[in-house]
Amino acid sequence: MPRYDVVVVGAGILGLTSAYYIKKWNPDKSVLVIDKFASAGQGNTAKSEASFRNVFSSKTNFFLADSSVDFYFHLQNDLGYNLGLHKIGYLFLLGETSYRKEINVFREVEKKGVEVEYFEKDDLEKMIPGVVLEFSSEDEEAKRLNLENVVMGVLGKKCGYLDADSLVKFYEESFKKEGGLIQYKTLVTELILEPLEKYCIPGEPFTWQEAKIMGVKTNRGEIRADTVVVAAGAWSNILLDPVGIDARVKPKKRQIFVLKGESLEPLFNIKGFNKERVLPFVAMPTAEIYLRPCIEEKTFWVGCTDELGRKFELEEDPQPEKYFYIYGIRLVLEKYFPHFRNLKPLNAWAGQYTQNSLDANPYIFEEAGVITVTGASGSGILKGDAIGRVAAALYMGEDYAELYGGRKFKVSDLGVDERKAEKEELVL
Amino acid sequence: MPRYDVVVVGAGILGLTSAYYIKKWNPDKSVLVIDKFASAGQGNTAKSEASFRNVFSSKTNFFLADSSVDFYFHLQNDLGYNLGLHKIGYLFLLGETSYRKEINVFREVEKKGVEVEYFEKDDLEKMIPGVVLEFSSEDEEAKRLNLENVVMGVLGKKCGYLDADSLVKFYEESFKKEGGLIQYKTLVTELILEPLEKYCIPGEPFTWQEAKIMGVKTNRGEIRADTVVVAAGAWSNILLDPVGIDARVKPKKRQIFVLKGESLEPLFNIKGFNKERVLPFVAMPTAEIYLRPCIEEKTFWVGCTDELGRKFELEEDPQPEKYFYIYGIRLVLEKYFPHFRNLKPLNAWAGQYTQNSLDANPYIFEEAGVITVTGASGSGILKGDAIGRVAAALYMGEDYAELYGGRKFKVSDLGVDERKAEKEELVL
Repeated sequence: MPRYDVVVVGAGILGLTSAYYIKKWNPDKSVLVIDKFASAGQGNTAKSEASFRNVFSSKTNFFLADSSVDFYFHLQNDLGYNLGLHKIGYLFLLGETSYRKEINVFREVEKKGVEVEYFEKDDLEKMIPGVVLEFSSEDEEAKRLNLENVVMGVLGKKCGYLDADSLVKFYEESFKKEGGLIQYKTLVTELILEPLEKYCIPGEPFTWQEAKIMGVKTNRGEIRADTVVVAAGAWSNILLDPVGIDARVKPKKRQIFVLKGESLEPLFNIKGFNKERVLPFVAMPTAEIYLRPCIEEKTFWVGCTDELGRKFELEEDPQPEKYFYIYGIRLVLEKYFPHFRNLKPLNAWAGQYTQNSLDANPYIFEEAGVITVTGASGSGILKGDAIGRVAAALYMGEDYAELYGGRKFKVSDLGVDERKAEKEELVL
Repeated sequence: MPRYDVVVVGAGILGLTSAYYIKKWNPDKSVLVIDKFASAGQGNTAKSEASFRNVFSSKTNFFLADSSVDFYFHLQNDLGYNLGLHKIGYLFLLGETSYRKEINVFREVEKKGVEVEYFEKDDLEKMIPGVVLEFSSEDEEAKRLNLENVVMGVLGKKCGYLDADSLVKFYEESFKKEGGLIQYKTLVTELILEPLEKYCIPGEPFTWQEAKIMGVKTNRGEIRADTVVVAAGAWSNILLDPVGIDARVKPKKRQIFVLKGESLEPLFNIKGFNKERVLPFVAMPTAEIYLRPCIEEKTFWVGCTDELGRKFELEEDPQPEKYFYIYGIRLVLEKYFPHFRNLKPLNAWAGQYTQNSLDANPYIFEEAGVITVTGASGSGILKGDAIGRVAAALYMGEDYAELYGGRKFKVSDLGVDERKAEKEELVL
């Protein structure tokens, strides 16, 4: 029976970064990554909107994101890996309500050293041709849609988007270069929980037995390992619930719609926000809608973080909903950005977000021989490098992980027993 | 269509205490309790082991438990309701490992004003005829079972057991006396989430709409309510997941086995622990096994808090497992208490525990017109009165609830956004 020191379940971004750092820092250990798909990053990593930012209210999230983003720029700018990084900025448009709620959050974020720039409404109107940031009191439609006038814009500078596939490929290849192994098309059906001393009594292990996860059952047979890393994202509960370990996350569908058209042209020719002269990633002032340009394709990717009413459920093949774009997103979007008025999605897809309702920081904890790496709440890609380092440090029994740039990060801060993670206020 | 101010889903202990205090403190409001069973407390409340204690490491849990237990004694001793309360004490037998881990916890608990008494091993041996608290180094079986010698016993005084059914009946009748209504045999299939202003667009409510829970769908039609209280225990996720609200709990099976026999007689004639002259509730030094006498029937109820390996899963009709008693419990139990050696369970049943993995304190929070009352992690009965008061205070928009005895309890301490609940160290 095949046997490894470490088996990592999931070749998404978190599985690959974890596997890479475990192998890199423990070259003598045999590390195998297993994934049900035919290649790396084909699960929800591929469905991601692939933006990055270092603007987080939680200190923990900030450290994870900031160091990961620095590392990605280091890869692209210093080492020549093209990750498709575009530092176009994140523009948070604050309406009356979000201004009241969030302006102090941004002031605090600034104190942590996050580079932000504030824009007056009038300036934004001048900079973004065609944008509507204020509605007349007679605009019945704006009232029905509960739109808010924009009070201010806050631009996060070390923010933008990247190519998720290139990033995944980097970690996959680097992992293999270190001697790591990957087995695709292998579906893990079960974690193998066994007592250290087997008596072959029906129902064991019992509470009087010391027991741990000894490996995984797959559609291609059992694989044994001293440590199993579950980095299965939305599928975490399927593996952990049956052995009584609480992954502390729930999956929820998220959709992305791709828009293209001549009317969007002006948004690709804007001065003052970034070198690329495009509209930054925009978080809308109401309705949890966001959009970001894709410079390569001259498209915009549009999404919506719907919480209430969007069910928690694991879906194997989640589908985008046409009506969700038309009535959920476009009605609002086209009021602020009339550029989108007559456009239909060119493309659309849906993925499964893995929500940690407690604090929207990742969970990285060990229990009974399983290291669970999850709960990035939609920011697995942008915090991926740091999360992999923390997972590897946990594997090695270290109290601290060294993030890129040299910052020491306390491993237990993302754990269960001694967790210290501030509740994130800037969830998108 | 029927319409109420408040609909409470679940006539278990938490649904009834919540409904009772909401109605009592808001006599003008119409309050309806719905339950799928034919009478009160027939879900997991009926499956409970129905013990009570005020020995908790978490200050929050202590306040909830201590005041509830005081209230129950007030009902029985001052007001003449027979709740079958037996203040027989909780005896925590500490092995080497649990002594190291927990002795400071007990010292801290004592400082909070919890009455505890410490017993030396030798005294325990004298007091409990036939008990075995130390194993010879040649006892191979004890080694295989990872048994530990008992170092000390800690007796919680304001602890014991009660009759869950009598408690439930008290709240049911009191609620009805206040004018509350109950509808049994009514299964809630869905929470009704609707926008405040309906446009009848497919897929609404969208994020631009203000929306809330407007009532419930049941197998007997829709019922509308301004506020819905979900006190559905293990079934909470079935109702809340579809509307995207995270109940933050998971259900897990728990089993109780009832033992009777002549060999148990000596355990019903013990001096020094309680007035009833019986063995107190005992938490065993290893293997998470506990037992408690039932004085009325001269039986012992035995259970085991199995965590690892016991799957998280909602089961509609969970069954006790014969082998779980024989190999999981009895092997260990009969080493310490040989009295159980040749006995077979006279009766057994299983229920669904509702686990809050975060801190094992209850969750009481409002979101979109739903008040969720859950997560008591096996101690809903013993904290029931206080939980009902906190839920009612939340309903009334109060910052503080007044617990029995006059203590003010901050409602948001058990909520989501400003939660302040210490992780419970003494989970049974």
